[in-house]
Formats: sequence, C-alpha cells, structure tokens
Amino acid sequence: PTMAVSGVPTMTTRVQSRHPLDPLSVAEISVAVATIRASGMTPEVTDSMRFIEVVLLEQDKNVVALADAYFFPPFQSSLLPITKGGHVIPNKLPPRKAKITTYNKLSNETIIWVVELSEVHAATRGSHHRGKIISSEIIPDVQPPLDAAEYVECEALVKIYHPFIEAMKKRGIEDMELVMVDPWCVGYYSEADAPSKRLSKPLIFVRTESDCPMENGYARPVEGIHVLVDLQIMSVIEFEDQKFVPLPPVDPLRNYTSKETRGAIDSSDIKPLQIIQPEGPSFHVNGYFIEWQKWNFRIGFTPREGLVIYSIAYVDGSRGRRPVAHRLSFVEMVVPYGDPNSPHYRKNAFDAGEDGLGKNANSLKKGCDCLGYIKYFDAHLTNFTGGVETIENCICLHEEDHGILWKHKDWRTGLAEVRRSRRLTVSFICTVANYEYGFFWHFYQDGKIESEVKLTGILSVGAMHPGETRKYGTMIASGLYAPVHQHFFVARMDMSIDCKPSEAVNQVVEVNVKVERPGGDNIHNNAFYSEEKILKSEMQASRDCDPSSARHWIIRNTRNVNRTGQLTGYRLLPGSNCLPFASPEAKFLRRAGFLRHNLWVTQYKSDEIYPGGEFPNQNPRINEGLSTWVKKDRDLEEADIVLWYVFGITHIPRLEDWPVMPVERIGFMLMPQGFFNCSPAVDVSPNPLDANHKENDMYKPAAIENGPISKL
Amino acid sequence: PTMAVSGVPTMTTRVQSRHPLDPLSVAEISVAVATIRASGMTPEVTDSMRFIEVVLLEQDKNVVALADAYFFPPFQSSLLPITKGGHVIPNKLPPRKAKITTYNKLSNETIIWVVELSEVHAATRGSHHRGKIISSEIIPDVQPPLDAAEYVECEALVKIYHPFIEAMKKRGIEDMELVMVDPWCVGYYSEADAPSKRLSKPLIFVRTESDCPMENGYARPVEGIHVLVDLQIMSVIEFEDQKFVPLPPVDPLRNYTSKETRGAIDSSDIKPLQIIQPEGPSFHVNGYFIEWQKWNFRIGFTPREGLVIYSIAYVDGSRGRRPVAHRLSFVEMVVPYGDPNSPHYRKNAFDAGEDGLGKNANSLKKGCDCLGYIKYFDAHLTNFTGGVETIENCICLHEEDHGILWKHKDWRTGLAEVRRSRRLTVSFICTVANYEYGFFWHFYQDGKIESEVKLTGILSVGAMHPGETRKYGTMIASGLYAPVHQHFFVARMDMSIDCKPSEAVNQVVEVNVKVERPGGDNIHNNAFYSEEKILKSEMQASRDCDPSSARHWIIRNTRNVNRTGQLTGYRLLPGSNCLPFASPEAKFLRRAGFLRHNLWVTQYKSDEIYPGGEFPNQNPRINEGLSTWVKKDRDLEEADIVLWYVFGITHIPRLEDWPVMPVERIGFMLMPQGFFNCSPAVDVSPNPLDANHKENDMYKPAAIENGPISKL
Ligand SMILES: [Co+2]
Ligand SMILES: [Co+2]
Repeated sequence: PTMAVSGVPTMTTRVQSRHPLDPLSVAEISVAVATIRASGMTPEVTDSMRFIEVVLLEQDKNVVALADAYFFPPFQSSLLPITKGGHVIPNKLPPRKAKITTYNKLSNETIIWVVELSEVHAATRGSHHRGKIISSEIIPDVQPPLDAAEYVECEALVKIYHPFIEAMKKRGIEDMELVMVDPWCVGYYSEADAPSKRLSKPLIFVRTESDCPMENGYARPVEGIHVLVDLQIMSVIEFEDQKFVPLPPVDPLRNYTSKETRGAIDSSDIKPLQIIQPEGPSFHVNGYFIEWQKWNFRIGFTPREGLVIYSIAYVDGSRGRRPVAHRLSFVEMVVPYGDPNSPHYRKNAFDAGEDGLGKNANSLKKGCDCLGYIKYFDAHLTNFTGGVETIENCICLHEEDHGILWKHKDWRTGLAEVRRSRRLTVSFICTVANYEYGFFWHFYQDGKIESEVKLTGILSVGAMHPGETRKYGTMIASGLYAPVHQHFFVARMDMSIDCKPSEAVNQVVEVNVKVERPGGDNIHNNAFYSEEKILKSEMQASRDCDPSSARHWIIRNTRNVNRTGQLTGYRLLPGSNCLPFASPEAKFLRRAGFLRHNLWVTQYKSDEIYPGGEFPNQNPRINEGLSTWVKKDRDLEEADIVLWYVFGITHIPRLEDWPVMPVERIGFMLMPQGFFNCSPAVDVSPNPLDANHKENDMYKPAAIENGPISKL
Repeated sequence: PTMAVSGVPTMTTRVQSRHPLDPLSVAEISVAVATIRASGMTPEVTDSMRFIEVVLLEQDKNVVALADAYFFPPFQSSLLPITKGGHVIPNKLPPRKAKITTYNKLSNETIIWVVELSEVHAATRGSHHRGKIISSEIIPDVQPPLDAAEYVECEALVKIYHPFIEAMKKRGIEDMELVMVDPWCVGYYSEADAPSKRLSKPLIFVRTESDCPMENGYARPVEGIHVLVDLQIMSVIEFEDQKFVPLPPVDPLRNYTSKETRGAIDSSDIKPLQIIQPEGPSFHVNGYFIEWQKWNFRIGFTPREGLVIYSIAYVDGSRGRRPVAHRLSFVEMVVPYGDPNSPHYRKNAFDAGEDGLGKNANSLKKGCDCLGYIKYFDAHLTNFTGGVETIENCICLHEEDHGILWKHKDWRTGLAEVRRSRRLTVSFICTVANYEYGFFWHFYQDGKIESEVKLTGILSVGAMHPGETRKYGTMIASGLYAPVHQHFFVARMDMSIDCKPSEAVNQVVEVNVKVERPGGDNIHNNAFYSEEKILKSEMQASRDCDPSSARHWIIRNTRNVNRTGQLTGYRLLPGSNCLPFASPEAKFLRRAGFLRHNLWVTQYKSDEIYPGGEFPNQNPRINEGLSTWVKKDRDLEEADIVLWYVFGITHIPRLEDWPVMPVERIGFMLMPQGFFNCSPAVDVSPNPLDANHKENDMYKPAAIENGPISKL
C-alpha cells in the first residue's frame, strides 16, 4: 500500500502500521520537514533554515505499553493493568510525532519543533505533508551540533582565505589541494566562545601527494595558525599566524591502505575463515522487533545516539516475558586531551552532542565490518538542508559463537558436560573526524547483556620542532606528537527490572566487599562479606568505581523475589574505568560535569536524556544536565530508575597506534543477580560433536628440516 | 625409527630428535621411572614408592639457544654470540633430563630425582632403561600434591568407616552408594597440620538418585562431620560428628545434564553455526614449534602448570626474529573462601601446587570445547604408581576471527579501510574437584598477547538450617549456601624483550598518570601526563594495580630503541583485579604471601618457579617462595627479568551461578609499546567482500500478525 508521487515517499493508510518506537521512516521525515516548511514562514526564513535533526519523539511509556499489549507483537495484554470495567481496548494508538531541531543561518536561531504525523495516505489527499505542528520553541543561547555540510563549506572557505594561503606558503605549501581543514568545535572557555556566534576552530593538515586521496594527511599537522570561523556567516573572523613550527618530515609509515603498506613483510598468508549458518540465523526479525533465544527487544536509531535498544525482556518460562530495561543507548562521549598547549587544550570533543554518533554512522560491509550471517538495518536521517539521506547497512545484527558457555567434568565418572556460548550482537560504527567508535550490545544465553565500545581510527596529532619532546604525549615519528587523552562514554540505561509498564518499583543498591574485623568467629582472619547499601536519593547516587572493594551495583525490583526470597535484580558490573585526569576547575568540566562520577542514578523524566544538556556545543551554562538534575535529589527507594554509567579509557599513545590504532575495547556488563532461580543457560542444548574434520596435521615440513646438516 | 618392545615405547636413535624444551615423551617418562626403579632400592621401598611428577628438567637458556641456533627451526644462528675463533658449532646437544618427584608411602619421604635420558635406541641394547640418575635429594618437612588415586582411595576408605556410616544414618542416608567424599588439602593452621602426616579433610555430599551418576551431588552438602584422613597410612585418624544440620531439601534445579534439564522452556532453537577454513589453518606446526603470521613459539606441558609457552618471538621484517618472552605459564592459583566457619575457612585450594593444573587437564572435544579447525596436542603424564597416561587432545590450538582489527573512514572521500582481526589461541581446560578453569593465550596480529582465564564449574556449597542465612555468602536454594570467595591466578612470565639468548638487558618501568598542577601553562586545568619510574630492585618491585592512576608496567630492553629513540618494550596492561579480602594475619596468607601484591619482579633464577615454594601442601614455613626470594633485593635495572602477575576475581555467588556457573573471564594483556615503529597490524590484507550471502530477510511472519484483530 505504499506509493510514491513525484519522487516523494508517502505514508500508508494502514492504521498502526508503525510501532510507537519505530524510528522515523523516510516518508515521515519528509512529512516533518515539509510541514515546517509549509508553516507560513517568509521565503527568507525558509531559505536560511537548516535541519539539524529530525527524530522520533518517543511517546510516553504507557503508549508503548498499549502498543505492545494490543497492536504489535509480543501482544502482552496481560502486562497492562486492568481498569475498573475490565480491559478497555482502544482501537487506535495516538499519532506518532517527530521532534525537529532547526537552525536559522540568518538569525542564528535554534528552534525545536514537534510535528504530529497523521497516518493517512498522503498521496490520495493531493498533498505529501500531512503533519501538524504541535509546538515550536526558540531555544535561546545555544548552538546546535555541527553538520557535515558545514565541515565541507568551512574547509573550502579557509582554503581560499588569502592570509591562510600566505601562511601555508611560508611553510612551503604551494598546492592548496593537499591541505586538509578539520573543523572542531570551540567548546566554552570564556565569553568569546558564547553561542551568539557559531564558531569553529579548525585543525590544519597537509598531504604530500596530490594524486593519492587515501594518503593519511593527519601525518602532517600544520601548527601555529589560529583560524576562527563563524559558521553562521561562513566567514573567517580571526586569523593569526602565531608561530612557526616546521612540518614534520614525510613519514614513510603514515599510510594504511593496502597498496601503500605492502612491503617486504606482510601478513597475506592468512587463510580464509568462514562463519556459516546453513539453516539461517536463530533470530527472528519483524520490522524493528527482534527475538533471539529467550530475549526480545526493539531497536531504533537517532542521529545523536545512533543505535537505541528498547523494551528488553527475557521470556522466562511460566513467569512469562520479564522486562529488564526500557531503553539503552549511548547519549554522550567526551574526549579530553591532556596537553595544556594550544590547540590541544581545546580538544575535548563531545562526539554525540556536538556532532552526532548516529549522523556519522558507517555503511557496513559484509566480510569486512561483519562476518557471518548478517541482518542489516538502514538508517534514515535528514541532511542540513532537509533532504532525507539513508545510511544503508547501518546497524548490524548477527550471532557469534563465544567459546564455552559452561562446563563441568565429574571426576568420579570422567563424564563432562559442556555447552557453547552463542551471543546475539547489535552494533554500529561511526567515524568522527579522525577517530572511529564501534558500539556493540551483546545478549547472552546466561542472561547477561554486555556493552562494548571498540575504539580505532587515527590519533589526533600535533607537530613539534625537530628534537623537541613534551611530557604530555608521545613522539610517534620525527616531529610528530600524539598528546595523551581520555575517551569517556555515557551509557544511559532506563531500567525496568520486572516492572510492568505502569510500575515504577526499582531501586539501586551499591555493593562493597569488606574485610571482617579480627576476633569472634574470625579466628583465622579469612572472613569477608559483601555489604549492600540502598542509594536512597539522587544526591547519594553519584558514585565512583572502586576495585579495592569490588564495588558494583544492583538494580532490583523492590517487590519481586526469587526462590530464596531475594529481590530480583541485575548487577551492573564495571569493566576497567577511570575518572578525568583534570583538576576540578578544568574548563571542559564546566560542560562535562557528568564526567565527575562513574555512576549516576536519576528518577526517570522523559526530557532528561543528554547528560550535558540538550546543546553542549559552546554551552556557557556550568554543569547543565545531569549534575544539575540530581540536585533535585529525587527519591530512588522505589522509582522508575535511570542509570547513567560513565566509563573511560586513558590513552597514552604508542607507536603501535600509528598510523591506525588497533582496536581497543572497553565496556561493562549487566548480569542477572537473583533475577533467575538458577542459571538460565543450564538448558542450552549440547552442540553435536564435530565429526567433519578428521584429525588434522596439515604441516608439510618441506622447507624446514630438523638437524644441523640442512643449515651447514 | 620408533619401535615398541613388549608394550614399552622406546626412544629413537636419531641424535637431537627432540628439542630441549619438548615435553617428555611417553618413552622418556617410562625410562625415567624405570631408571629410578632399577636404582637398587629394596623391594619394600620400590613397592611403596609413588610418582608425584615426572617432568622435563628444562636445560639452561644457553642450551635452548644452541638448539634454536643450529639444531631446530627457526635456526637462528645469528642470535648466538660469535666466540673468538668465530662460530664454533657443536655437533650435539647435552642429553635431556627428567625431574622426578616421588613420595614413599612407607617412610613419608619425598625425593626429587634428576635422571639423564640417553638418546640411544633402548630396544637395540636389550634394555628399556637407559637413563642415569644424576642426583636424588630427600626433601624434608614437605607434602607433595595429592594424586587422583588418593582421591579414590580416600573416598572408599571413608565410606566404609563405621562411625561415618552411623553419622550418615543419623541424617537419614542409608545408601552409601549415594555418598560423595571430596578430599581437600588441610592447608597449614597449626602444628597439627604439619607435613609429618599426609592429611586430607574431605567434604561430604550426597546424591538423591542411585541410578543417575550424572546427578549433581554437590547440591546436598553433609555438614557437621569432621573427618581427618591420613593418606600415608590411608586411615581415618580423627572423626567427630560435631553438629547436626539437616540435609537441604532436594533441589529440583540441581542438575545440568541435558536429559535432566529439558523442561517446558529450553534453548534448543539455536541454529547451527560452523567455522570453516576451507584452505586449512594459517598456522604451521612442527612438533611443538608453532608459526603463525609473524609469531612463533614452542609449547610444552607440565603436570603442575599445564600449558607452557616458550621462546615467543615476532618476525619483524629486516629486524628478524625478535624475542618477547622465554617462558610463560600459570604457576599457581589460590581460591580462599570468606566464611570463618568450619569447613569453609579451610578452603583455600592451591590448585597447581596441591593438585596440578596439568594433571587435571581435560581431554577436549571438537565442536564442544573447541570450534573451527583445531590442532590438538596430547599430554603424557605418570600416574601415582609410575604408569604413563596420556590425555588425548589436551591442548587446543586454533585460529579465531576476533572482530575488526582496525578501521578508518576518510570523511572527505567516504572511503573506508577496515581489517578483520584474526587471533591464534592456545589453551587447555582443567577440572579441580568442583571447579573448572580454562587457560587461554591469544596471539594477535597487532603484536598483542592476551592471557585469559575462564572460570566455570560448580560452586563449593554448604548446608544451612532452614531459614538460616549468613553474611558470608548467598543462599542459592533452600538450605543451600554458597560462601563468598576469591580466585587468584599467578602468571609467571620470564621475559626476553629484544634479548639475544646471552643477554640480560631488560628492566621494568611503572607508569602512573598524574594530574598536572594548576598554574603555569596549565591555565585551563586540563593537563595530565604519564610518569615513568624504573623498578630498580626486587624490594621496590612488589606493586599493586591502581586504576586511579591508570597504572601499568612496561618491560623494556635497556639498549634497543625504536625509530623515535624510545626503548623498545611491552606493556603489561592489567585487567580487572583485586587483592585478598583478608586481614594481613590471615592463616592462609602464611603459605600464599605472593597474593599480597599484584606484581612481583625478580631476576631470573632457574629454580624460582613456584611462588609458594616447591611444596605448598601443608607447608609450615611462613612466606616461602616469592616473598622470600625478593628479600635478596636483586638488581633489576638491567637484568634477566621475570614478571609475576597475580590477578584475582571476587566471587559473590549468584543464583545464576547454579547449578553450573556460566563462564566468567579474567585476564591481562601484553601489548607492544614502542616495540615496533608503527602498528604491526597495518599490513594485514583486507578480507574479500562477502558476496556469498545475499541480503537476508529470513523472517516469515506466519505466526505473528500485526494489528489487534488477530488477538481478539
Ligand atoms: Co585515543
Ligand atoms: Co568462584
């Protein structure tokens, strides 16, 4: 029932064809944009309007519950409370809504719009915009994230700016084709950075070969040039050639494309390895609804967060579908650098809020990014001018073998039982300028959910005078310097442990292991125990990791118990972690107050999503977002709980991180703790013995012989 | 050239057919045992002699170097120093030697023997023992590890001991077939535990079904019975029915065999997943020598440590074969429990030194324990009475795809380069009573070596009175209690970063990240840096992990530099870790002083292998081993460095760890740090795009339809 009229995709007439949490379709995005454009603005305003983000406005949880109960699988009508007159079954869901952020290049005005999307077949009504503006609000004193289009314009602008060309000439660079201008946000250091201007302070690099677009230009940073661009008027507003640092010599090891790096040594003797599922995958996909083993959940995608996972539940036999979390996503990341010198001190990218993890997502390729039987999902986004773009194969869903799941061998009988672990992985990878980040969520048969971030890409480097070194980083090659930095990630987890949609009965407990005092029963001094403490309100719930007490947290249902009478819960088990290596007065912490602790807990509020506030770019307001919200000190003893887990890695660059950093991994685990009555992995079927491969001894000792004679 | 005479395998006549590091062959073990037996002992002594361990006595490093230089691949003659008259090439290697530990059941005497093994074809000489006893030494005041044969004898003994039968009757247990007696070492708590007796204090359990040998009997601990067995005379020497605790009710969730756990819910809908290498693996195996990508190393196996990895080196183009480590293995592990009550306070198993990680290794099965193209190695060991036993398929060698290795997408061109990570994995799994441990070493294309331990198996539980709980553990089921405990592992790493065999030019540096003080250049307060400190001598080198300073260690060559002039090295990157949650006076720390720190560094000494000393079982000597050796405070500024990394996990049992604990992982990483001039992974070939699978959308929405009608 979907038709296209003059190239514009249109909506279908089918009522409730789209779940309230499905990401906006191409048609919906088009309608949302068109609705705003048709809202009676002057042509001047329309022309200067840019589209930062068009995203699903998520409905209230009760609407989602209604949808899941009656309109969409898993049809969990039993989860809805029975009203006085018994079940009242509505015959439709409220219309879907889009939230649109626009930026006016003329007025420097940022507006957030809400547009209701009617589910009628637009084409038959002679119009493709059937949206209705519900609200629009001018947001003062903010700058929305940068857009890829601005990157391109900014680079072009700087490259034709005469003083810049002169400065490059001074450094021996004549061919402006080789010059790379990477726009970076300015952050907020003083009133000069106020959002009354839309600023960018680009970093400059220069390639060496005009005919090699895949040359790694980051290998030659151009230092000492201060360029400040006003992106609103798209004009260089400050320029200074501050100091002369020679270009680093051409690094013969700078490149990473296969053509460039094939030399005497290579690793091409790797034999193919195939992962094959001859009967197809074990997951089932229906739209954005995914079922695998006893897990089910929905996925979504936003320009800012990328992948979102909704309504995670585990089907637990006669206990039915048991919720674990409403919504999981990465809502921010920050990369502060440790060098106090310019330009490095300005480098503390908020890659979600200043740029967009979803906007910068990669189109993935089978065999390269992903191996095995893959189900891809596309993502649809607006570009700066309101056109719809699609990132094909943006989200990857697949299964992986993950080694042994459990094993026991009985020493009396010699009999062993062993099971293979299979996991379901949903992921996407984004590129933000020089770095790439892969965000992976793994679901396991033993009830665990693992979040894993993979870091790779190219170091952000600077140039140094020959022979110069600096304590704040590593010399990677002659004249090429990589400052220390940290990568922080914020996972927002709206939990729902064993909660029906209308229930808000979770709490968080901190667990610390304590050594028992000597004396009493503890005569051998071996005793220790774990101590639980409820985090009673938000101000008590800003916590840090502490491996010295094996600290972790349990999110549990306040009313539901397992077979031994313990409250059912999930353990948040930190992985390796850190806090910012910055003094408390550090300027970047004004905007990133949420980095001050590894764990935050809040009472759910629908508009508290981004820990640095809605618009961290050039944000002048100290501690906006999470660190302000918790000052409300809302009760957490029995609530709708949102966990914010902040985790980081300190990156002291190695030569081996150049020219492309091998993947580093960091993450955390959600593991059931008394959620189940026993291991949910105990009933996994044994794998059949692999009789296909006979005992293999492939080695042909043709080239190498034992004994000294062959070498003499 | 190998022949068998009357069932006894014999040695080959070929000179230097076996590398000095190859584990003892079946023939060599037989010869070693026979040599001792033929050494003129009385029949009484021979009859009462038991064989605890027969293992290769590793030759000096210079013998190994000689072998690698001239007799065996990789034929690295250039690595040997040139003597005055040029290369002097010997025509043979010194004979191999075996180290044998015997225990005399009559005299309670432990002897360590060294037997030289002549490489002549024994069968042609009319005798199968051609070994020569080099030395034998009575070791006073020790108890060697327990043997599986003693487990069996001890259980049988207790089960026919009349007062024990009476005590079981009191608890309603009539059928002694159902009773399980698990012998545990007693440790050392007082003079009563002195090694003048060979003691075991078994734990008692009882199954419920006589016809189900795979029933999980650990689900019903029998409490309150004190049994002390003297294993030397194999007799119960103490018995007391101390207190009555009712048997826990039969737990319906206790079993884990597939027959027993298949119920209404299961996970049998998992589709097959195959890992196929149609052209075979990328590794080459020649005896115990393994080459893969640019890595090469040898493997070995000992009854105590299990897998040993020797002579690890990386072939780095024109720089040739660059050593990284001489020898890597797990030399001890300890599992202390946190409950001060009997019997739990006694539970702190030294699974290597009291039992044997190698002795208890599993015979692995393709498709179950291991997936993909597997090369297995067998292990040969003596049993208690000196017979040779073989654990078939004991060590697993295979390749794994490990996700993306590195990626970068250029935002200007949209072009992406991505590489898959392949790793080579060598592993074994052992079972020590209720628990299993998998020890994995992973080699990566980016120069990393990862050590990973997988923990699974069955919790060690106790019984409780109905309704009773205890702060030192978790109630797993009614009356069934799992005390908190920790698992500690000691990896011994004899390093050789860029060292020729004769060189001892490594050192260890500790790195801590520090926040820069305010002021000066640090006007934005963002600055931090990493501070290096050489660990100059052994007493300075007992160190703990400290995530708050991103602490890690670098093992580096003191003379070799990379292209930027830094000393070449490897980073020891801790994973999650802990220290014992015990007060310093804890009794078990007498024997496990090495658990007091996460890192120890020593100067290499050939007989310093086991951190708790040669015989930790019932060891009365406080702090024997590592914590005593370091008091020599040997110089570490330029030395042959041995790293001892001690890492642990604190296990607060969950219901989900029952009846079999899903695998937990813990480990650490050795990563090159300035060892290479750039990423050694940069030249890995791109994977071909996977065109085999077309866009898959397997979902058939047959069972589930959208919309409310289908449900009403
Ligand atoms: Co980094
Ligand atoms: Co454990």
